[in-house]
Amino acid sequence: MAFTPRHLINGVPGDLIPVSDRGFRYGDGCFETMAVRNGGIRLWDRHYRRLSDACRRLGIRTGVNREQLERELAGLTAGVDRAVVRLTVTRGADEAGYRPEPGLVGNRVASLLPDRVYPTTHRTNGIKVHLCEARISRNPRLAGIKHLNRLEQVMARAEWGEEFVEGLLCDDRGQVIEGTITNVFIASQHRVSTPRLDECGVAGVMRAEVIDRLRALGISCREEPVSVEQLLAADECFLTNAVIGIWPVTGINDTRFAIGDVCSRLATDMAALLE
Amino acid sequence: MAFTPRHLINGVPGDLIPVSDRGFRYGDGCFETMAVRNGGIRLWDRHYRRLSDACRRLGIRTGVNREQLERELAGLTAGVDRAVVRLTVTRGADEAGYRPEPGLVGNRVASLLPDRVYPTTHRTNGIKVHLCEARISRNPRLAGIKHLNRLEQVMARAEWGEEFVEGLLCDDRGQVIEGTITNVFIASQHRVSTPRLDECGVAGVMRAEVIDRLRALGISCREEPVSVEQLLAADECFLTNAVIGIWPVTGINDTRFAIGDVCSRLATDMAALLE
Repeated sequence: MAFTPRHLINGVPGDLIPVSDRGFRYGDGCFETMAVRNGGIRLWDRHYRRLSDACRRLGIRTGVNREQLERELAGLTAGVDRAVVRLTVTRGADEAGYRPEPGLVGNRVASLLPDRVYPTTHRTNGIKVHLCEARISRNPRLAGIKHLNRLEQVMARAEWGEEFVEGLLCDDRGQVIEGTITNVFIASQHRVSTPRLDECGVAGVMRAEVIDRLRALGISCREEPVSVEQLLAADECFLTNAVIGIWPVTGINDTRFAIGDVCSRLATDMAALLE
Repeated sequence: MAFTPRHLINGVPGDLIPVSDRGFRYGDGCFETMAVRNGGIRLWDRHYRRLSDACRRLGIRTGVNREQLERELAGLTAGVDRAVVRLTVTRGADEAGYRPEPGLVGNRVASLLPDRVYPTTHRTNGIKVHLCEARISRNPRLAGIKHLNRLEQVMARAEWGEEFVEGLLCDDRGQVIEGTITNVFIASQHRVSTPRLDECGVAGVMRAEVIDRLRALGISCREEPVSVEQLLAADECFLTNAVIGIWPVTGINDTRFAIGDVCSRLATDMAALLE
């Protein structure tokens, strides 16, 4: 059900931030986009750990501990059946240049947003995907982090309209990295691969969950380089996202895929989580 | 003289923007940092053209024409002797994902900020510069644009404290690209080079001015790849920035440089502009 978004800024209701916030000025921060189910946040522990890790790597002081944050989010999601929470943490507001003011403490914005509703056929019948011409740039220091510098994704998304559901991005070496909002898995002869994200890409929370689930199911899953050729020659391909769950891919440009065994086993195994 | 910053948001005084602004959520926008001198904006025509070009390349609709913008900025800077204006244009505020809402019009923030005062010795005696370990990532679609995705610069700036004045960044191939807030020029035997910015980097307004001035002075200046080896072996090196002007470099890590002929001729030629 649609509703008006509600935001907490450092725990206080509001929907405005200072223009001096470094998130606005430099994209100097990180965020999590999370599924709310029955008043709770799905995969919260993974989201929290990724956010903490991002803040540690970026050198951002959040000014809030896990308990406080959980209490804040619980207040926001109480009584909400299905929704999305976007949690943004920036380095804070200052008038400094790239070097922040000493002792600066971050700002956080927790937004309760309407659930993103996609056709259920995306999950059951699979989706068609565009292979983007835009390249994703490599920077090992930022690789894996869901930071606020997302212009590459915005530009990539501008390559198509409604004719595809998602777009896949390669780096400048032609290695497949991820979708604009998803991570990508391929399977060939029951051996599953997902691109290594040590040079670029966002290390998705659902990606981590799927890797663990696959291994628990006894299915080999490696994080390794995946070329476009390997992608297009794969037996099956599927995409993951914390809100979406899993989408089987049935087409990438002109290449067709069947919904495969691995994807079906995962869907069964994860049915309760992905409701 | 220091004063409290003043901001106009789409022409209206204020200092807050919606958390749904895409500049905040994705760094989906671009900006100009400009020197105010005697109530006017130095190199305004170049700044305006770069901003327009950035908006065109990013597909941002500013919702304002040049005349309106000039009137707005004139109101902000009237009677101000020396200051800095930061002009930010984002794609606008929406609740959409990477694909913006159709017809979205941008938000703009014009901020009047205190002049950045650096020691005059930076200009007269030169500065010491750090060669950053951080690499700048390559993306031809974004190259040259002063966009809001500046996390790489923030991370690079964190590599040193007060012991250097600026840091120089290379790409992953070891080509010198720029400083964190400056562009870089080298001269060897009166032949001047500045890095080509077709894969990454910000095409600075003062860089463009210096290239034109050099040519008018009959000094060859090429935009071409510059390796670290060429940089360190150069006769002279200097940095440019729209607010700073020109800083001669007298040291890069352990390599020393003299303030050279080219830099001195430029400083003389541009003295009135750089006051």
